[in-house]
Amino acid sequence: MTLRIIATGGTFEKHYDELQGKLGFAESQLPEVLKRARLTLPVELEVVSLIDSLDMVDQDRLDILASCQKAPEKAIIIIHGTDTMRETAEVIGAAQLDKAIVLTGAMIPYKVDNSDAFFNLGFAVGVAQLLAPGVYVAMNGRVFAWDNVQKDRSAGVFVPKTM
Amino acid sequence: MTLRIIATGGTFEKHYDELQGKLGFAESQLPEVLKRARLTLPVELEVVSLIDSLDMVDQDRLDILASCQKAPEKAIIIIHGTDTMRETAEVIGAAQLDKAIVLTGAMIPYKVDNSDAFFNLGFAVGVAQLLAPGVYVAMNGRVFAWDNVQKDRSAGVFVPKTM
Amino acid sequence: MTLRIIATGGTFEKHYDELQGKLGFAESQLPEVLKRARLTLPVELEVVSLIDSLDMVDQDRLDILASCQKAPEKAIIIIHGTDTMRETAEVIGAAQLDKAIVLTGAMIPYKVDNSDAFFNLGFAVGVAQLLAPGVYVAMNGRVFAWDNVQKDRSAGVFVPKTM
Amino acid sequence: MTLRIIATGGTFEKHYDELQGKLGFAESQLPEVLKRARLTLPVELEVVSLIDSLDMVDQDRLDILASCQKAPEKAIIIIHGTDTMRETAEVIGAAQLDKAIVLTGAMIPYKVDNSDAFFNLGFAVGVAQLLAPGVYVAMNGRVFAWDNVQKDRSAGVFVPKTM
Repeated sequence: MTLRIIATGGTFEKHYDELQGKLGFAESQLPEVLKRARLTLPVELEVVSLIDSLDMVDQDRLDILASCQKAPEKAIIIIHGTDTMRETAEVIGAAQLDKAIVLTGAMIPYKVDNSDAFFNLGFAVGVAQLLAPGVYVAMNGRVFAWDNVQKDRSAGVFVPKTM
Repeated sequence: MTLRIIATGGTFEKHYDELQGKLGFAESQLPEVLKRARLTLPVELEVVSLIDSLDMVDQDRLDILASCQKAPEKAIIIIHGTDTMRETAEVIGAAQLDKAIVLTGAMIPYKVDNSDAFFNLGFAVGVAQLLAPGVYVAMNGRVFAWDNVQKDRSAGVFVPKTM
Repeated sequence: MTLRIIATGGTFEKHYDELQGKLGFAESQLPEVLKRARLTLPVELEVVSLIDSLDMVDQDRLDILASCQKAPEKAIIIIHGTDTMRETAEVIGAAQLDKAIVLTGAMIPYKVDNSDAFFNLGFAVGVAQLLAPGVYVAMNGRVFAWDNVQKDRSAGVFVPKTM
Repeated sequence: MTLRIIATGGTFEKHYDELQGKLGFAESQLPEVLKRARLTLPVELEVVSLIDSLDMVDQDRLDILASCQKAPEKAIIIIHGTDTMRETAEVIGAAQLDKAIVLTGAMIPYKVDNSDAFFNLGFAVGVAQLLAPGVYVAMNGRVFAWDNVQKDRSAGVFVPKTM
């Protein structure tokens, strides 16, 4: 099995720009992150965008969907900002592709102390290989169906819509 | 679903003892690691031992097996040294418990730069929830059956026995 | 010799607020940072403010000056944002106190990968004990007199005004 | 002023060898460490050895002394293991060179969580520029004369011989 990882940006990828004095995006950190993970299964990394998910417009989600459609792999991970992860999951979910597509991200950037990014990536790499075709959000150690998930912003965690 | 995590020690848990000037074991780091993972599924943490897996004797493996047998959870993760992970997997595998039991560990301690520990834990938390009952080794982003896995010591990765 | 360390905020102290999704201030990180430094000389830590130095107003600088004046210690370190470090140095320098007062800070927050914060603190702790009374900026491994220093914003380093 | 930094190994430089499963030495980490420090003063880095200071023999100390003697710089930092830092300081101190020579090191390797290495380097870079010619040990935020220092092994800190 080959895994495709689609980078779109989000908190996971934010880095601190010391000249501007703020968080932003530079190159994707995923090549370095994946090396650290010591994976022996084949991985195709594709950088579709490097933006804050709050800045995503419809076309950005369609671009991600197009990448999923074109991908020959049956297991796909999308690294995405948490704020609109559900919206992108809905766009891809509605397309009913015959692939296991898992969206994940991070509450704290990979490069910042106490980040959950590396754990979440490991979690997604695990479940993407085992889940039936469908679209899922994988956060907080849980897998959510794309049409039954929401971010609880005050708690900073993902929960089902129906509990 | 509740997850049980059994700590046994291994490289994952090694810490640097600055008075002795070498790596050893102190308290389990898993409470801190799990907090960082921001899990919302219930987790029971059980520390069975904190030793190098090269120092494990038969009784140590039987203790781990006993913990698996007693556990009410259907999904169990064992944090274990990589050097004899296969041997422990064989002891537990032979017992044919009706639970998904996943052994994982790390090539570099959690507290050391460039560690794979946090990724591996995320990977194990993912697959333990989805795998059928059985005993597995989860390393390098892959899941191996307990009776078809070995550590390639020169490359530092896990591979199937039969390729 | 006892050392006084005055925290005022700045990039050094910024932390990532995962609910807001941005950098801000919480409690001072200096107690933890100082513990890690394993100092055996006595240190008095005083938190005067926790703000971005771009948000400082005249009163903030006067508050810092007042703390320097009241301090019984002959060696003082001020942890400060780099953007207006020079301005605060000028306010304190003009007061001509009979103390060695060293301003330092960081280009990248202490809690972010590749931060210079811990080095800069070590540097400041060293020079504050040896410099003659006066006001100094200590950044980039160099000591600058308060009236001959400026930040080169495009390069992200401190340089003398007169070169 | 140009600074010379002489690497000799010690805990500061130890890295985790994941194939051997233990701490050892590979290439010096100082080029990376110095880049992170964002120094603007000129630095000459010289790697004399990469060994545990408990493994040093007389010739190793003479090699370090020879490097100090040959160096055109008036300020020199020696990165050294803490266990025999005093012994090397005595060899160099007895030579009465007309240079400020500062030995420092770390209780925890640079690459390991909670390390003091980066702070200690910053401290040494500061005091080496300001101290009168002589040989010093710079640890725990304090400067010790070469002939009045010892390591308190049970506490893990440096103290004067005469208190």
